[in-house]
Amino acid sequence: MVKTISILGATGSIGSQSIDVIKNNPEHFKLGAISVGRNMVKLKEILTDFRPELVSVQDEKDARELSKLYPEIHFNYGEEGLIEVASSKTDLLLTAIMGSVGLKPTLSAIDQGTDIALANKETLVAAGDIVMKRAYDKGVNIIPVDSEHSALFQCLKGEDIKSVSNLIITASGGSFRDLSRDQLKHVSLKDALNHPNWSMGQKITIDSATMMNKGFEVIEAKHLFGLEADKIKTLLHKESIIHSMVEFIDNSIMAQIGNSDMRTAIQYAFTHPDRIYKNNPLKFEELSQLNFKEMDFDRFKMLKFAYQALESGGTLPTVMNAANEYAVAEFLAGRISFLEIEEIVEDRMLSHENIQNPSLDTILSLDAEYKTDMR
Amino acid sequence: MVKTISILGATGSIGSQSIDVIKNNPEHFKLGAISVGRNMVKLKEILTDFRPELVSVQDEKDARELSKLYPEIHFNYGEEGLIEVASSKTDLLLTAIMGSVGLKPTLSAIDQGTDIALANKETLVAAGDIVMKRAYDKGVNIIPVDSEHSALFQCLKGEDIKSVSNLIITASGGSFRDLSRDQLKHVSLKDALNHPNWSMGQKITIDSATMMNKGFEVIEAKHLFGLEADKIKTLLHKESIIHSMVEFIDNSIMAQIGNSDMRTAIQYAFTHPDRIYKNNPLKFEELSQLNFKEMDFDRFKMLKFAYQALESGGTLPTVMNAANEYAVAEFLAGRISFLEIEEIVEDRMLSHENIQNPSLDTILSLDAEYKTDMR
Repeated sequence: MVKTISILGATGSIGSQSIDVIKNNPEHFKLGAISVGRNMVKLKEILTDFRPELVSVQDEKDARELSKLYPEIHFNYGEEGLIEVASSKTDLLLTAIMGSVGLKPTLSAIDQGTDIALANKETLVAAGDIVMKRAYDKGVNIIPVDSEHSALFQCLKGEDIKSVSNLIITASGGSFRDLSRDQLKHVSLKDALNHPNWSMGQKITIDSATMMNKGFEVIEAKHLFGLEADKIKTLLHKESIIHSMVEFIDNSIMAQIGNSDMRTAIQYAFTHPDRIYKNNPLKFEELSQLNFKEMDFDRFKMLKFAYQALESGGTLPTVMNAANEYAVAEFLAGRISFLEIEEIVEDRMLSHENIQNPSLDTILSLDAEYKTDMR
Repeated sequence: MVKTISILGATGSIGSQSIDVIKNNPEHFKLGAISVGRNMVKLKEILTDFRPELVSVQDEKDARELSKLYPEIHFNYGEEGLIEVASSKTDLLLTAIMGSVGLKPTLSAIDQGTDIALANKETLVAAGDIVMKRAYDKGVNIIPVDSEHSALFQCLKGEDIKSVSNLIITASGGSFRDLSRDQLKHVSLKDALNHPNWSMGQKITIDSATMMNKGFEVIEAKHLFGLEADKIKTLLHKESIIHSMVEFIDNSIMAQIGNSDMRTAIQYAFTHPDRIYKNNPLKFEELSQLNFKEMDFDRFKMLKFAYQALESGGTLPTVMNAANEYAVAEFLAGRISFLEIEEIVEDRMLSHENIQNPSLDTILSLDAEYKTDMR
């Protein structure tokens, strides 16, 4: 059976690799509707290989121009366009958009009963309780695409969640893993964007360097697998070869291992519970050793914030995520230093009065508020 | 539900650790019938904690003496006793006896429809086709106890065997892993019995030093999982922390990881597909690194012989196993040198005229013949 896959964020890093997976396996997958941002060059590349019925872009003027070039395709734009793509009929929606902007379209897809391949972790960080409850009520599967969560998901195959003693999420340590806090004072944007193992988008690369990304993953794991914070551990593993592990109550540990190739996790999210052929296996004989180191929460303060947000619950994770989106954007724009990212996040978390069991409206309005300058 | 576990070889290394598992979990397990060899001290220890209905020993005189000491227990001895234990009604029979002497009792248990927790790998090496076919016909499950096969079994949970590209069996390298072939000429029995990671019985420790054990495991894996030799790989991994791995066609590799504690695999064989609590988890933070090295078939010739036996099929694996049992016994008795073990095995394999699709009688008679001096 050929599965139709729609994509939010088709020209981003995950989006482009997903397009590869679909293109390489036409007997298994077909591209449905897509949304992109402002990257018209990459969009046109996609349109040389595929003819989706519906394409949404960020700006109205791009939509208008494209309509003339591709009259057989229906174009839309902005938030309405995102929601139209998310709500269109498809077998699986990949949410590969960055940031909490993915939240509303994801909920629309869930309301349609569409299974989600989730790469947009901010959605679960900002509103995990609401998203997971809605998915549960609608019988919708949320399949992880992050390499760590795909690993956990695979390790849990055929297992009873009650037999789990710990999820162990591995962390490469990001671009600055070998630097002390003192050395972090003077790092540049260019250095921060140079991740040792994974080639990813800018925001997630910065989030990896601050370890905020690992914090998001801890929160994401809580929502995906329904385990409490004290059962979700992190471990420094600089090679990123073991993508994550599950430790069971009988001391058996299952690990998922592979190259730093996101296409493996993307493809598995598309084929689960089955597997299909993919080239480029890991060469164990070329691997001399794997290293492990205990996580250092003083060095990586953002991870500590994430555990605090997870334990406090309520709107604190939403605020942490929004503050981080703001701060990373400021850093990417060259307006603040690397360490100021965590200062901003910490300040905003400390000054926030937490609200338990927030409504979606509360979450959306806090998200919007904490993403702005606020001065 | 409390499961009754009977044990062939209850005082050996695996047997004793199984008794521990049963003793530590009286709410889950009950000891059924047991067989032992000549270790009356250990047997009496077992009988202070348990009152099995049936106990078989190796020698008639031991059986007679024990009958007087424990009048409420039924004792038997020799091969007949082994078969009586194997055929007695139980939920699971653990075959933890060493050598091809386990073959006939295992077949008796299968004929009774009893599931087998298999630690006696020589049974599958000597007569894997016959044993697996009989188990299949009777609907009997053969659950692996070896740490490597337990790992593979766990990695395959919920997976389609058709999605497997390779089984990767890890090998510590045994007592002499850092010695060259030249240095092997003068090693002593005492050195050979000093395994770096696992505390095991004498025969299997020697088999580990010669790498014959890894060869047996390759053959065992073929029979347990129904994959051909070219899909069963070995990898040197000196820490024995990754117990084995399965590589799938989509490049995802699942690994099972843990301490060098056989009780984890034993317990899993008893509880599969469930898991129950066990103390003593692996401490990842104490683990600095894991190492890997390509297998060296020139250094470890016995593993090459095993692949040849597996590829040739017929009676060659039976002969290899019997010749090895003979040679290891000679080495343990101090009558031959370490390298003569592989010379004897190679000579007997080379001089044997292979017989395809052998009957059980052919296998049993060749097994008996090749276990003797033959000069």
